[in-house]
Amino acid sequence: MRIAQLQTHTYQEKKKNIEELGKYLERIQNEKVDLVTVGEMFTCPYNTRNFPVYAEPEGGESWKEFSRLAAKYQIYLSAGTIPEVDEEGRIYNTAYVFDRSGKQIGKHRKMHLFDINIEGGLRFKESDTLSAGDECTVFDTEFGKMGLCICFDFRFPELSRLMVQRGAGIILVPAAFNMITGPAHWDIMFQSRALDNQCYVMGTSAARESSGYIAWGHTLLVSPWGNIIQEMDEKEGYIINDIDLDYIDKVRRELPLLAGRREDIYRLQELKN
Amino acid sequence: MRIAQLQTHTYQEKKKNIEELGKYLERIQNEKVDLVTVGEMFTCPYNTRNFPVYAEPEGGESWKEFSRLAAKYQIYLSAGTIPEVDEEGRIYNTAYVFDRSGKQIGKHRKMHLFDINIEGGLRFKESDTLSAGDECTVFDTEFGKMGLCICFDFRFPELSRLMVQRGAGIILVPAAFNMITGPAHWDIMFQSRALDNQCYVMGTSAARESSGYIAWGHTLLVSPWGNIIQEMDEKEGYIINDIDLDYIDKVRRELPLLAGRREDIYRLQELKN
Repeated sequence: MRIAQLQTHTYQEKKKNIEELGKYLERIQNEKVDLVTVGEMFTCPYNTRNFPVYAEPEGGESWKEFSRLAAKYQIYLSAGTIPEVDEEGRIYNTAYVFDRSGKQIGKHRKMHLFDINIEGGLRFKESDTLSAGDECTVFDTEFGKMGLCICFDFRFPELSRLMVQRGAGIILVPAAFNMITGPAHWDIMFQSRALDNQCYVMGTSAARESSGYIAWGHTLLVSPWGNIIQEMDEKEGYIINDIDLDYIDKVRRELPLLAGRREDIYRLQELKN
Repeated sequence: MRIAQLQTHTYQEKKKNIEELGKYLERIQNEKVDLVTVGEMFTCPYNTRNFPVYAEPEGGESWKEFSRLAAKYQIYLSAGTIPEVDEEGRIYNTAYVFDRSGKQIGKHRKMHLFDINIEGGLRFKESDTLSAGDECTVFDTEFGKMGLCICFDFRFPELSRLMVQRGAGIILVPAAFNMITGPAHWDIMFQSRALDNQCYVMGTSAARESSGYIAWGHTLLVSPWGNIIQEMDEKEGYIINDIDLDYIDKVRRELPLLAGRREDIYRLQELKN
């Protein structure tokens, strides 16, 4: 299975960001990739004030264009995240995933909102304008089940565990860490989730300077053994890697971290779905 | 709060290992440490055949000596782990913790046994001679609640989470990683557990060559922000550090990874206790 991760620059103009996505897909079309991922809020500069302004309903213009691009290049497309507005006017940070025919096969609304207040450092309060989703997301592909969650969601080990309990062998994480938590926690978080759950993990970020928001970048791919297969720096660009899905079973068999759980002593339960 | 971690050499002779512990405590007695930790199976060369031979019941000779040393130096003593035999002759990998008066305040039986079989690499099957414990362990001290688990136990994120849900601010982990999993996973595991649970984590190992078993060593202390405060190399010795318990609350307040859990969507439950 061949995967591409695009670390794009986020322009102010929504349309330009989608055009850029199209150009990347055009540029890599001879690479025969099966899955392409993009970062969090890649069409909307990361700012709580922007989310309502850039928001579209499911099936809106951006969504249609993602679907068209997936079908045109016959790829699985995890089109990062964009702001979604529902019938009641609530705004979500939402990821859509399309199959090779352009059909939506996955959708995740960020369920842990990023409300943080570090002394002398960073303040950010997504819940000022966003509502939280309430579902763990796993979907089927020809490469088996994949899970998806968004940035701060991935901080909570429960959520990755739930995805893996539901059969995910790959977890996609559109994200945009900042310059405080990025250097401190980005690698540790991705490596440990991959290692603990013995699955591939793909973290896909925006490039560093993206219309006001300073993202950590460092898009990366981690193996089920917890080692970083490839990691970008902060600049715009993309990486393409082949992954061996049989390796998931090999690692799970040799180091039985999933089979070894003591479900007679503790149990992680999903209360919805 | 001042803590010492002893990375001892494991001799064949059980008594010599306990004498060595006494010498270390004598040597550091002017440092005014509050808590001392030692590694996994620090009185018994790490080998499934040895466990039944070295095993003692709770309250046995080794236990009495640990209790005496804790009282003599007026310290909290997490006396690593030793093989324990119960009334029915079952053998456990057991950690005892004593308070400043020598009273046992904590006891943990390793509940995830290390059965591993890496192709072309390592094979180890603790369950050949050991039985598994079935309780998550948290105990009270004058410094608040602490959790304790043993080596492979710490691989399972559920267990650390349970300890923290029960109020632990520090997790003690007597351990003995090997030369395959050590370089690959030791730091990631300790850093991620500390980070995800926003608590101090102390991993205490045997020194490298310990009567047949080749341990990774690398005894370390990690902060609630996930950074390594100090880490040893593979050699025998000890480290002493002061930790600030108020920092736990500060990190939990500023980056709300515990308060932010979606317990309406998932719940980790303890089925016993």
